[in-house]
Amino acid sequence: MSASFDLAIVRCGELLTLGGRSVGPRRRSEMSEIGLIRDGVVAISRGKIVWVGTQKEYRRRGRARREIDAEGRVVMPGFVDPHTHAVFAGSREGEWAEKLRGVPYLEILQRGGGILSTVEATRAASLKSLTERAETFLHKMLSCGTTTLEIKSGYGLDLSTEIKILKVIERLADRLPLDLVPTFMGAHAIPKEYSDRFEAYVYQVIEMLSTVRSRARFCDIFCEEGAFGYDQSRRILEAAKRAGFEIKLHAGEFSDQGGVRLAAEFGAVSVDHLDHIQSEEIPLLAQSGAVGVLLPGVSHFLMAKQLPPARALIEAGVPVALATDFNPGSSPCLSMQEIIHLAVRDFKLSAAEAISAATINAAHAVGMGDQVGSLEVGKQADILILDLEHYEELPYFFGVNHAAKVFKKGKMVYQDR
Amino acid sequence: MSASFDLAIVRCGELLTLGGRSVGPRRRSEMSEIGLIRDGVVAISRGKIVWVGTQKEYRRRGRARREIDAEGRVVMPGFVDPHTHAVFAGSREGEWAEKLRGVPYLEILQRGGGILSTVEATRAASLKSLTERAETFLHKMLSCGTTTLEIKSGYGLDLSTEIKILKVIERLADRLPLDLVPTFMGAHAIPKEYSDRFEAYVYQVIEMLSTVRSRARFCDIFCEEGAFGYDQSRRILEAAKRAGFEIKLHAGEFSDQGGVRLAAEFGAVSVDHLDHIQSEEIPLLAQSGAVGVLLPGVSHFLMAKQLPPARALIEAGVPVALATDFNPGSSPCLSMQEIIHLAVRDFKLSAAEAISAATINAAHAVGMGDQVGSLEVGKQADILILDLEHYEELPYFFGVNHAAKVFKKGKMVYQDR
Repeated sequence: MSASFDLAIVRCGELLTLGGRSVGPRRRSEMSEIGLIRDGVVAISRGKIVWVGTQKEYRRRGRARREIDAEGRVVMPGFVDPHTHAVFAGSREGEWAEKLRGVPYLEILQRGGGILSTVEATRAASLKSLTERAETFLHKMLSCGTTTLEIKSGYGLDLSTEIKILKVIERLADRLPLDLVPTFMGAHAIPKEYSDRFEAYVYQVIEMLSTVRSRARFCDIFCEEGAFGYDQSRRILEAAKRAGFEIKLHAGEFSDQGGVRLAAEFGAVSVDHLDHIQSEEIPLLAQSGAVGVLLPGVSHFLMAKQLPPARALIEAGVPVALATDFNPGSSPCLSMQEIIHLAVRDFKLSAAEAISAATINAAHAVGMGDQVGSLEVGKQADILILDLEHYEELPYFFGVNHAAKVFKKGKMVYQDR
Repeated sequence: MSASFDLAIVRCGELLTLGGRSVGPRRRSEMSEIGLIRDGVVAISRGKIVWVGTQKEYRRRGRARREIDAEGRVVMPGFVDPHTHAVFAGSREGEWAEKLRGVPYLEILQRGGGILSTVEATRAASLKSLTERAETFLHKMLSCGTTTLEIKSGYGLDLSTEIKILKVIERLADRLPLDLVPTFMGAHAIPKEYSDRFEAYVYQVIEMLSTVRSRARFCDIFCEEGAFGYDQSRRILEAAKRAGFEIKLHAGEFSDQGGVRLAAEFGAVSVDHLDHIQSEEIPLLAQSGAVGVLLPGVSHFLMAKQLPPARALIEAGVPVALATDFNPGSSPCLSMQEIIHLAVRDFKLSAAEAISAATINAAHAVGMGDQVGSLEVGKQADILILDLEHYEELPYFFGVNHAAKVFKKGKMVYQDR
């Protein structure tokens, strides 16, 4: 029986399907199994993947109305970026220059810099200007191969600005050929007007939950010293669960506040950062079912002395994902390719592990593991053709964009020239 | 009197002319003077810059047959990449993965890996395949804003392959809208067949000089322990000078072999690497007139423990330039934007210093300081429009390509979409 496909990407020198035996995120040695098919073909109908195999099988099996020749290059799923703060006003390049000269972050904060300067700028910005700025960022991400991303609110820290940011995400989803996953992160920092009334702000965040519920899938909390401690995070999590949110947590970026225990208790979908996680908590994290999202752009940009225990996490069975954490303070990086390079260089992931982490595991980190993140029949046809012969070259040839063509739901949305 | 221009790039939010008071490379605080004109215009006729000024002056002064709107963005000279080894066969991503797993380079070398594996592959490759491969690399460089680059031979290590590589560079220069500066680097390593006859290979390199002279402007030597020591380098330099070559030197990458003294004695145009330069040699280097070319891609890729004394070099008056050192073993990086990011992060150059180092000083490092590297009247119209509002964002938003449009000799040769 011969099938007819809308589109086939043929002559894929290395087709990385990321298909796996398990339905869930990939753990341990599964992270190295990227489903490589040499001389492969991926076929698409109505925006979905309908067939994957070798060129030889394809010649026997089917025919597509349109063929795109990958010319022997690497073809793989679009990147999923499961942790970004992409909607903000202003930028903080001057602050980074100060940090590099050795000015302490506390001094920068006291002068009105740091995250609260982004909050101030974002509050003052119009919906339109915020949308236009973020659209520029997301276009760049798309051109670097990201086809699905999570975006957090959290530069508002008041109800109206948090809603404004979530509305920007809705507009972006309408305008761009990207799947966007919105996360409410009112618990990102303590706003200036609450600086001496911390508990009142925790109450405020809990108050906001029901109003923003319809606009966000996840609720995230910056569980950290100087931000939201164990008890405060716990109260917000209880309310968020009641309101029907799925849970993400920032935990262990600068200190360990017991975020992993909270994640396990509340069934978090992901726990992100993990630089300062205690080794006792690693098995707990592995059992919890949460994806561990590592953010090598932050370690790189802030020249962190302590890195997350990536190898120990993988060996313990934590499904590890990678994200840009795109934000103006600690990771102004839009490219998952650069993140893969840094994960290999700094966290000692293999190229295959980093690719699993940036696709299938990242998809699970945003609750979309059944729709994107691998080239398997029934999933969205979110596909990259990279200007590379071997996938191991992806982290190796660093600092440039290797995306030659990007497809979202079977449509070509970016092409290099 | 009203002038008429072929082309004007108008509404440059920040026009970085890199124009300076001195004709030579920029030293000390001059490296921070990037000639910023807000709301600027640069006008072009017959591929050269004929006028630079503000929008206001332009309205009074002239008119161009064609205008390109920079839409308030950053406009600057094309990057000059003064140190690359861009013509080679094979790649060595597997070797990097081994290094990251802790396998010593010596073990890799003994198994036939390392530089000699690239030599073997390059000797076996056809002129055509070498040209096609390098063309792909150079297209990527161009899309990242490099408009002039130096390319070294040195993966042949025998006369016929060294000539083949220099011929590839000639073909590339014919095919691509780039100024290419060819360098003969027969003294890059000791080929296998000479492994126990080191002196015979030095003699061989000296023999090659007259034959390759017409195809290369510079002669470069890897002055390093395990490669060419002080005495051997000295003999090659004497012969190269006699043959009419201008001089470049690899010095201080892993050890100090007195390369700076040689550079001073032989009037080298540039001394490159400098990671292990002795502090006593810095004033000598400053007096020598040579440009000090730093290679942050190498430090990053090899995770070097010792970095070059960038600040001390600048303070001593060494004109510092930056380069990718694009090569398969120690810096598979094609983008000068990534190099600028790393120079700011790791070598603590300011954004302005790094931009001077990647343009005007890099131009002097390849003996083209009078033709490229700044937007001054009479120079080539090699110009970038970056998708940025402020030049300080260039090192800050890292890992992506910010080039929106690239012009070579007044012609648009790359455009982002």
